[in-house]
Amino acid sequence: MSRFSFDIEATDGAARTGRITMARGEIRTPAFMPVGTAASVKAMLPGAVKQTGAEIILANVYHLMLRPGAERIARLGGLHKFMNWPHPILTDSGGYQVYSLAKLRQINPDGVVFQSHIDGAEHMLSPERAIEVQRLLGADIVMVLDECTPFPASHDEAQASMELSMGWAERSKTAFEAGADHAAKAALFGIVQGGTYGDLRKRSAATLQEIGFDGLAIGGLAVGEGQAAMFEVLEATIPELATGKPRYLMGVGKPDDLIGAVRRGVDMFDCVLPTRSGRTAQAFTRTGPLNLKNARHRDDPAPLDADCGCATCTEYSRAYLHHLVRAQEILAPMLLSLHNLHFYQDLMAGLRAAISESRLDDFASDFLGALGSPKAS
Amino acid sequence: MSRFSFDIEATDGAARTGRITMARGEIRTPAFMPVGTAASVKAMLPGAVKQTGAEIILANVYHLMLRPGAERIARLGGLHKFMNWPHPILTDSGGYQVYSLAKLRQINPDGVVFQSHIDGAEHMLSPERAIEVQRLLGADIVMVLDECTPFPASHDEAQASMELSMGWAERSKTAFEAGADHAAKAALFGIVQGGTYGDLRKRSAATLQEIGFDGLAIGGLAVGEGQAAMFEVLEATIPELATGKPRYLMGVGKPDDLIGAVRRGVDMFDCVLPTRSGRTAQAFTRTGPLNLKNARHRDDPAPLDADCGCATCTEYSRAYLHHLVRAQEILAPMLLSLHNLHFYQDLMAGLRAAISESRLDDFASDFLGALGSPKAS
Repeated sequence: MSRFSFDIEATDGAARTGRITMARGEIRTPAFMPVGTAASVKAMLPGAVKQTGAEIILANVYHLMLRPGAERIARLGGLHKFMNWPHPILTDSGGYQVYSLAKLRQINPDGVVFQSHIDGAEHMLSPERAIEVQRLLGADIVMVLDECTPFPASHDEAQASMELSMGWAERSKTAFEAGADHAAKAALFGIVQGGTYGDLRKRSAATLQEIGFDGLAIGGLAVGEGQAAMFEVLEATIPELATGKPRYLMGVGKPDDLIGAVRRGVDMFDCVLPTRSGRTAQAFTRTGPLNLKNARHRDDPAPLDADCGCATCTEYSRAYLHHLVRAQEILAPMLLSLHNLHFYQDLMAGLRAAISESRLDDFASDFLGALGSPKAS
Repeated sequence: MSRFSFDIEATDGAARTGRITMARGEIRTPAFMPVGTAASVKAMLPGAVKQTGAEIILANVYHLMLRPGAERIARLGGLHKFMNWPHPILTDSGGYQVYSLAKLRQINPDGVVFQSHIDGAEHMLSPERAIEVQRLLGADIVMVLDECTPFPASHDEAQASMELSMGWAERSKTAFEAGADHAAKAALFGIVQGGTYGDLRKRSAATLQEIGFDGLAIGGLAVGEGQAAMFEVLEATIPELATGKPRYLMGVGKPDDLIGAVRRGVDMFDCVLPTRSGRTAQAFTRTGPLNLKNARHRDDPAPLDADCGCATCTEYSRAYLHHLVRAQEILAPMLLSLHNLHFYQDLMAGLRAAISESRLDDFASDFLGALGSPKAS
């Protein structure tokens, strides 16, 4: 059984399609990972997540270490068993949520001390503890702890932050390899930082590749810099990354973000957008987003997206979904999240097929044109 | 195709098991109908409701006439299509919710004028309008409009209320038959009233059977009178009802209520309890109810109910369900409602099998004993 391999099967420009092979399953790339923050892809049964086409999900170290606790999940047999998802799981390292959710952070070279946003209890996250938590969870793809560089940041600030993260990346690698049983089955990804500065991104990429990782993430994006700046960072960073390892753009994004990033050579994504939108009555469609709260849907017998084969689109009308939203029925986020995840997986399947058949430009142009997005991105 | 037939296949004491046959499907009795108040069995996909064993659901006229509106559902092809439930649907007449939810009720012999609890808009419900709404929805089993007699009520109050309901029942029959196309496919049930007074229940039953209905409901119970008084009313009422027609106890109840009522000859039930409990972290099990909020579950790898074959029990631990409840994940009501509905349908299947095999007393005694309920009820 392969611990971790990545095979590129076709390329089209900078874009690639292929597959990651791990003990728990194959992941066709470019891949979109639904987010199962607290050991649940919100409003979805795991079997339904799989049926949308997802082959890997993401879970959040920060949330799970606070509740129910990594040691508890380990005692219960690990995260896969706990949440009934037998396929690969990538866990983030908790760094991002320490910055976005926790209170009273105190950062030092060792790690970060913070207060839980749930009950105020004090917790500590270091590179070593982040790896330990991910080992307790039984993660298939493990992420190093990094500092999420704020945006905007000066060159000096971004450099200091990146250098801190690079030190943590090295410690993460050591800690990962010390857990021999887990390391024999799991993969470890580094995270390129450096803000919007191309020179820092280049140095970060070089440092990480010297340490050696199974794949590299591009972190610190989708934090307010905008799509154009994000694409610029990808263009500065991706040529610095070895061809043969997967590239993961963290926390991204909207459909046009995914298309633009795939065209620039990204292989993996995660984002809460499809499920979060499902809980706020937003639906993605091939002709642009819909707000199901809007009264214009109340008499509309049409499906959300006539070209979608998901259960929501084949069995329910916009009028019904509008009614469920207005009546605050739990079935509304259930059906909308199902559709949105299906839409995202359909997009990834479309991108993979287009790359295989060397027609990515046409696919992107058609898809973005129908969405009403700028065709050039 | 049979419009409506009821065949009793076996009896055991006063209890009966059999089947109702309608154009949209068969309903094995004793039957439990999950409640789909606002065109959704809360937190459940319709396919999952069917998989629990449900063959008919209940929907509420009051809720649907206010939102999204019966005329709108009719324009969209009827309730079955709207909510993707192709099997039989029983609709209540709205009377109960007018009393429990609406504001500023004004009752007169014609019907009742009330204000919507949603937006304060004025609406009217008469026996004729209640039938019209159910016809617009396309209900398979239609209920007459009745006045829900308050509890406690004096004999005079209960008599006046019952007599009003009997007049409405006659008008409902006339209105139902006037809708020839719908009446050719649907069934109409009357509702026995009379509070806790046996003489009034007897007169109500006689009046309704003179008018002629496909089945008779026993209304005005589970309104605070307690289980003993409810069973007394059943014992006073059921011997007055023709053997060959189904008997439906409205709005009941807990597992021990169902067992006691089946032993007294009831064939059909509806209750929000399994789904409402699923949204408040309560699970029914063969050894009594569980509150999943309770911290004692947090390390428990056991399923909710070791003898249950539902997906919740075969795939998830109490520890995980406790975590989902604490984290306020939508998956908590999804999994708990699924289990609770499955538990109720398993109970009904157990009752049907026990009646068929003339071992209902033993079944009831064993089931109630395991639940920790009084064995005599």
